[in-house]
Order: sequence, then structure tokens, then C-alpha cells
Amino acid sequence: MPEDTPTIETSEEVMFFDTDIGGVVHNIAYLRMIETARTRLAANMGFKLKEMAQTQIYPVVVRTEIDYRKPATLGDVLIISGRLDSVERVRFWVAFEVRRSGEETVLITCRQSLALVQMPQGKPLRLPDDWTDKYSHLFLKRNLEGVQSPERRS
Amino acid sequence: MPEDTPTIETSEEVMFFDTDIGGVVHNIAYLRMIETARTRLAANMGFKLKEMAQTQIYPVVVRTEIDYRKPATLGDVLIISGRLDSVERVRFWVAFEVRRSGEETVLITCRQSLALVQMPQGKPLRLPDDWTDKYSHLFLKRNLEGVQSPERRS
Amino acid sequence: MPEDTPTIETSEEVMFFDTDIGGVVHNIAYLRMIETARTRLAANMGFKLKEMAQTQIYPVVVRTEIDYRKPATLGDVLIISGRLDSVERVRFWVAFEVRRSGEETVLITCRQSLALVQMPQGKPLRLPDDWTDKYSHLFLKRNLEGVQSPERRS
Amino acid sequence: MPEDTPTIETSEEVMFFDTDIGGVVHNIAYLRMIETARTRLAANMGFKLKEMAQTQIYPVVVRTEIDYRKPATLGDVLIISGRLDSVERVRFWVAFEVRRSGEETVLITCRQSLALVQMPQGKPLRLPDDWTDKYSHLFLKRNLEGVQSPERRS
Repeated sequence: MPEDTPTIETSEEVMFFDTDIGGVVHNIAYLRMIETARTRLAANMGFKLKEMAQTQIYPVVVRTEIDYRKPATLGDVLIISGRLDSVERVRFWVAFEVRRSGEETVLITCRQSLALVQMPQGKPLRLPDDWTDKYSHLFLKRNLEGVQSPERRS
Repeated sequence: MPEDTPTIETSEEVMFFDTDIGGVVHNIAYLRMIETARTRLAANMGFKLKEMAQTQIYPVVVRTEIDYRKPATLGDVLIISGRLDSVERVRFWVAFEVRRSGEETVLITCRQSLALVQMPQGKPLRLPDDWTDKYSHLFLKRNLEGVQSPERRS
Repeated sequence: MPEDTPTIETSEEVMFFDTDIGGVVHNIAYLRMIETARTRLAANMGFKLKEMAQTQIYPVVVRTEIDYRKPATLGDVLIISGRLDSVERVRFWVAFEVRRSGEETVLITCRQSLALVQMPQGKPLRLPDDWTDKYSHLFLKRNLEGVQSPERRS
Repeated sequence: MPEDTPTIETSEEVMFFDTDIGGVVHNIAYLRMIETARTRLAANMGFKLKEMAQTQIYPVVVRTEIDYRKPATLGDVLIISGRLDSVERVRFWVAFEVRRSGEETVLITCRQSLALVQMPQGKPLRLPDDWTDKYSHLFLKRNLEGVQSPERRS
């Protein structure tokens, strides 16, 4: 991965509130864990929580795709690995994998697209100008999008 | 109960997301069910969600006391019965009981005190003036409070 | 839609716990609402919660795709419309749309694939034999799947 | 505090999913943070999550008392400090305080009583025999309980 690709790694110990009567982690609980990873990834890319609370400009989730491959259970220590996956003109994609600490097997994969929005009006904003340079290796050019958009790539 | 005591009854079917690996409803899930009942009780008392979103005046929870007597489990239909329990000058108490539909046994009892707050500053407001009359039978007089406050009554 | 396609409609009033500081419903909260609709859809198709708690055979979510088109906010009454979308040999797809009560605009679309699993071992089971007939109009034939699988269709 | 009193300190950064439209942390979110602290405190006292998943013997919450003194908001780093508060014959009490990192002001106080239960039957068990010695300074003697039970102490 190019060294200028923003990445993140967070860790979560599976608690009772993460599990359900099936004996494994509930499918929605992973999305809370992924939100924590995504928020820290966004902070690395310049979106600090404290500033967002002031400016009310938030990166909001536009689409989530999540695949549940293998279950985790109570007391597992999970590693959530995230990265900026691609950038378009008004939205960007982030990708996540969840594994047990010290294991190779991928339990969960997830991709999310986000847009910058001015709340509470919900007005969409352009992505920061310097991203074109900064993340040029992740930039999806317009004509390419028609051929292979992120939604169809997975 | 005097007929002018605000009451509420809501119903919830226990879903997977309500349960945990122990095979029963997770202790926090009841508080979400109780919030739904409390919000509808508050609506009956004049606090409509849509108006609150405008005025940003919210009844906020100041204290919760909840007793877990018997567990509920997946697929149970629960009845949450709530009522205005008592009124003080700047806060009021609501009380809830949770039962399985059609059964007498109380699974959960809960009391919560609330105060009116102007958000986002968090400024506490006086309760509506007409409550003194309207809920006079629930009004805790000041000198009584010293002797037997709601916290010590349970 | 053919009359033998299982469908469901549920309703949810947006509570405080559904919202976040952005002033709208949090992206994860919709998935809880959709789980309630999905659970009732599954009950219509023969998977009763109470029986599942006994047999420990559950339809588990294998993949979720959700698009956030327009936001809902506090006090909105949301209608979640769901249907069985397609059936494969070992999994099936359900689809959901979320609208405000009485409005046409679709706020959220969501598709989920599910598989039958024997918990807690997590052993996948075949779908009920009679589904081949019962939902023949929704059955994706094997050779078609190679050309246009549900994942690539959206 | 005597050095043999089990204590814990955990840290949580306030995420979007912790907040609500009022602009502050939702009252239920603190209980999830406190559960994480409580689970780690319990682990220090011998109740490991992984063993519990095997034995199905869990410390379950019997009562929660929580006071919301001051609000926290998005991006705050919260420190949850917990300790074993007192021990009775069949249940024990834990106490928690929540502060912003580096600040003295207590935002939240919480007390919870727990009992050991064999799931899924829900059969209550005696507390470990060695607790009488180990936590003798926290042991509430029976005749004292009549005078000043933990419920009435707060």
C-alpha cells in the first residue's frame, strides 16, 4: 500500500452487549466497532471530532456494504483495520477488515462511502481541494467511474 | 390511581438485538424500551418530540433506578406500563413496570427523575406553572422532601 | 408483485436514542429498525422467534447493503417495507425501503442476504425444500447466478 | 482505599453513536461504557469473559442506580473509574464515576449490584467462599444490612 494512504487500526474486546442469544457477536455490533475505526481514520485525514462539533460539517455515511464471513464471540479481542480506499469528486470510500488479534482469518469485510455534509441542513460539500494531489493514487477519474464504479467492484 | 395521573402503556417484542449470549434480554435493552414508553408519556404531558426538536427544550434524565427481578427472552412480548410518579419544583419522577403480555409477574421496575433543560447550553428550566394545580396530588412539598426524598423512598 | 411473495410493513417513531449530534437519525439505528421488519418477515415465512430460541436454528445475516438517501429526524414516523427478494440454494435475499409515513420519498434502501445456521456451531443448513416451489418466481437458477449474482445487481 | 479493593479504570472517546440530537451523550450510552469497565473489573476479580462463555456462570446486574450530573459531548475522552464497593452474601455492589480525562469534575456516578447466576436456567449461586476473607473490609454483615442497606445509603 502506498505510504500516503491513510490507514487505521483499532481494537475491541467483545462485551456482553455485543453478543446475542445466538452465542456470537450481533451483526449490528460490528458496525459500531467500524464506526470507531472510521472516526479515527477520519481524524487522521483532518476531520477532528471536536472541530466537527463546532463546524457541524460531518463526513456522513452514504452507503455501507458489509460481509459477515465468520462469527466472533464473547471475550474475543478484535482488530479492526481500515484504510482510505478510493476518492471521487464528492465522496470517498473507506474499507475495513475485522480479525481476531493474532489471527489471519478475516471475519468481516466492510466498505463504506462517505460524503461531506453541512448539518443540520444536510447540504453536501465538495471534498477538500488538496485531496486531488494528496490521494491522487486513490482518485477515481470520471471516465473510469462509468466503467467500474466502486459499487460494482466488490 | 387518580384519573388525572398521566399514564402510558407500550409494547415491545424482544428481538435478537435485545438479547445477549446469556440467553436473555440484556440489561441495557430494557432502558431503550423504557425510553420509548417515557417519550410517549412525556408527549401525553405536553412534550411533543417534533416541538422539542424545534425548541431544543428537552426533559433530560437526571437519575435512573432500575431493578432486574426476572429475565425476559427472545420473542417475549413485553408490556411497559408507566406513570407520572411525583413532581418537585425543578424535576419530576416517572415510574415503570415491565411484564410479559398477559402475565402478572413484574420483571423490571424502574424509576427515573427528569428535569427540563434548554439545550445545547444545558440550562435547567422551571417546570410548567400549571403542573402545581394539574398534578397537585403528586406534588412533593418542600418540607416533606427533607424528610423523605424520592431517592430514599424506593 | 406476485401475491405469494412474502412482504412486511412495520412502523417506528424516531426516538432520542435513534438520533445523533448531527440532528438526524444515526446510520446504525436504521439497521435496528430493519432487523425488526426482517424478523417479522421471517416469522411470516415460518421462522418464529420462540421456535428459534428452542431449535437454535437462525437465519443469520451474511451481507448487508444499505444506501442512505435522505435523513429522518426526531419524531418522524417511519414505515419500513420489506419483501423476500430472491432465493438461492443456501441463502436468500430480502429488500427494504424506509419512508416517512404518508410520503413517497424513499429515505433508505437496504438489501440483506441470509443463510440458515445451526447455532452455536455455526453450521450452515439447506433452505427448506418447499421453497423451490413456493418461491419459484424468486428462485435464482444456478447458471444465471454466474452471470448476474445479487451482489452485482444493485 | 485499602490496597486489596479491586479497582478499574477504562477510557472511552465519545463517538457519534454515543450522542443524540440534544448535542450531548445519550443517557443509555454511559451504561455501555460502564459495562466495559465493570466487565474488566469482574475479570480482575476472577470472572474472565472466556471462562464465562464456557461455564455459563455470569455476574448479572440486579440493580442499577445512575446519576447524570453534567453532560459529556462528542470527542470528549472519558475516564470511567470503578471499584468493588461492598459484598453481601449473595450479591455485591460496584461503584463507578465518569470524568473527562484530566478533569476533577464528576459527570456521572453509578452503583450496580450483581449476583452470580447459572444461565440459561437463571439459578442464583453463592458468591465465592474466599471473598469473606479477601474482601472482609467490604463485607456488609447481616445485622448491619437491616440498619443501612446499600439501597438506602446513596
